[in-house]
Amino acid sequence: MRLDSDESPTGGADPGPAPHRIAVRVYYEDTDFSGVVYHASYLRFFERGRTELLRALGIEHKVIFAEGGKDSFHFVVRSMAIDFIRPALMDDMLGVETAVAALGGASIEMAQRILRGTEVLVSAQVRIALVAAGKARRLPRDLVARLGQGLPGHNDPKVTRS
Amino acid sequence: MRLDSDESPTGGADPGPAPHRIAVRVYYEDTDFSGVVYHASYLRFFERGRTELLRALGIEHKVIFAEGGKDSFHFVVRSMAIDFIRPALMDDMLGVETAVAALGGASIEMAQRILRGTEVLVSAQVRIALVAAGKARRLPRDLVARLGQGLPGHNDPKVTRS
Amino acid sequence: MRLDSDESPTGGADPGPAPHRIAVRVYYEDTDFSGVVYHASYLRFFERGRTELLRALGIEHKVIFAEGGKDSFHFVVRSMAIDFIRPALMDDMLGVETAVAALGGASIEMAQRILRGTEVLVSAQVRIALVAAGKARRLPRDLVARLGQGLPGHNDPKVTRS
Amino acid sequence: MRLDSDESPTGGADPGPAPHRIAVRVYYEDTDFSGVVYHASYLRFFERGRTELLRALGIEHKVIFAEGGKDSFHFVVRSMAIDFIRPALMDDMLGVETAVAALGGASIEMAQRILRGTEVLVSAQVRIALVAAGKARRLPRDLVARLGQGLPGHNDPKVTRS
Repeated sequence: MRLDSDESPTGGADPGPAPHRIAVRVYYEDTDFSGVVYHASYLRFFERGRTELLRALGIEHKVIFAEGGKDSFHFVVRSMAIDFIRPALMDDMLGVETAVAALGGASIEMAQRILRGTEVLVSAQVRIALVAAGKARRLPRDLVARLGQGLPGHNDPKVTRS
Repeated sequence: MRLDSDESPTGGADPGPAPHRIAVRVYYEDTDFSGVVYHASYLRFFERGRTELLRALGIEHKVIFAEGGKDSFHFVVRSMAIDFIRPALMDDMLGVETAVAALGGASIEMAQRILRGTEVLVSAQVRIALVAAGKARRLPRDLVARLGQGLPGHNDPKVTRS
Repeated sequence: MRLDSDESPTGGADPGPAPHRIAVRVYYEDTDFSGVVYHASYLRFFERGRTELLRALGIEHKVIFAEGGKDSFHFVVRSMAIDFIRPALMDDMLGVETAVAALGGASIEMAQRILRGTEVLVSAQVRIALVAAGKARRLPRDLVARLGQGLPGHNDPKVTRS
Repeated sequence: MRLDSDESPTGGADPGPAPHRIAVRVYYEDTDFSGVVYHASYLRFFERGRTELLRALGIEHKVIFAEGGKDSFHFVVRSMAIDFIRPALMDDMLGVETAVAALGGASIEMAQRILRGTEVLVSAQVRIALVAAGKARRLPRDLVARLGQGLPGHNDPKVTRS
């Protein structure tokens, strides 16, 4: 499912394609006794967003693991910087936006946001690495190609990838 | 979203209406290191199913709590009997079926199943009570009427409610 | 052993050894917006209790998995019957009691309780099976011997194991 | 206090008191199907560490909420920067270190680390705000005094609080 962003950036620079977006409903399990969503629950929502972005690009986590062998690999989160701006509430229907912000040799930078309508509740910068047999690996060429479709200016061959 | 059951009961007795059904995707957060879904995660899926059944009947949890006052109430799970038949896996798209099995004066019996296609993975009998100001309460008449729509033989005025 | 009795069973029959017990603190993560502990959190507490009972008997889950090979096996929960009697609250220090109730050829029945002081909040009957290479297995003799130490009348060689 | 140094800081500057420390065992619930601890689980561990630090300073979360009235307040996480350095594993016994790094007028900066032995697995900078009736509030004087005990150089009256 692809929910198009409510926010239409109008700046002059190439904003890149619209971020990938999924809908997430808030349930009892996501809240805590303070009455709002428990802060770590947003990381679960962000992870769902990344998983669905990868699935949309043809990458299934179960398959990655099941393949085994020397081509087997998986993604691990290396770092996150998260701003919790406003709380989400029970029953809220949220949007989780995920965009590839930068592609390095062995890591992917993603920019993610959780919104209620057009209101940004949480934003995060997430760095993900590719690991095989316990070691960081270079991103395979076709993975870079698929992920690069989500980059701003991805049609520009001169784009510098950090 | 209402996904009609793949299973069409064909028995002579009134099977009641088709159970309410939601779709649930399995993510990293739901699994454990044994490689399959963590057993307590199924209870989260079942709770989502019950919440969506109640929402479909016009009952929102946030509203119930926010109303406060003497009419404020909430639901609590009193007991569960669960059979874990087959494990669900990462990336699985599951169906969660929820049906009202019986209505008592102060409690609701629900029958729930988690399926992958037509294969039943987990089944549960769940007893829920209505609580206000810390005490069990009789179910309000209009709630009984709305929930009773989900009962087998609910058009039969002689149906005995345990 | 049924755990429905209070702290000090006084009956004439051998009550068996005292159940294994761990302490569990309630944190934000365990509660939900209704203000008390989320019902599925108790299953996490019960699982911690079973894991610590097995550890006390010399059985480490990580080791079981890591061993691999033909002797590799793990435990899965087959069924649970749970009574949620009273809610636990944020900051509560709880006790989780676990006792082996019965040993079958390929499964273990455990009786568990969650208490706040001497007050029983939740009780559960849990059936666990031993699985290797995806199939149920007979319990190894030395595992039965170790688990049997927790059974009532375990010094009686004529004890019938269901 | 930055926690990037190893166990024994040897610099000439006042390193402040030792960070508060709790022990956390890794259970099934904390892991995911990749075989290691799920990344969001570390946030639950960090939150347990902060809660226990506050409890050690005489601040109970349940009491804060229950008090109500105009003096009622609670803490919310405003931002986190997290480095996931090495994975924790099932059955691991971890240490969670928490130190007050800075005190602002309405927020607290905490530095946290998760260790296995002396090996740092995860580190985080966490900013927490005090909220009452939905608005950020200045930290009460006695709370500042209690939290300030954990600051480096807290005996120095000239310490500047950001």
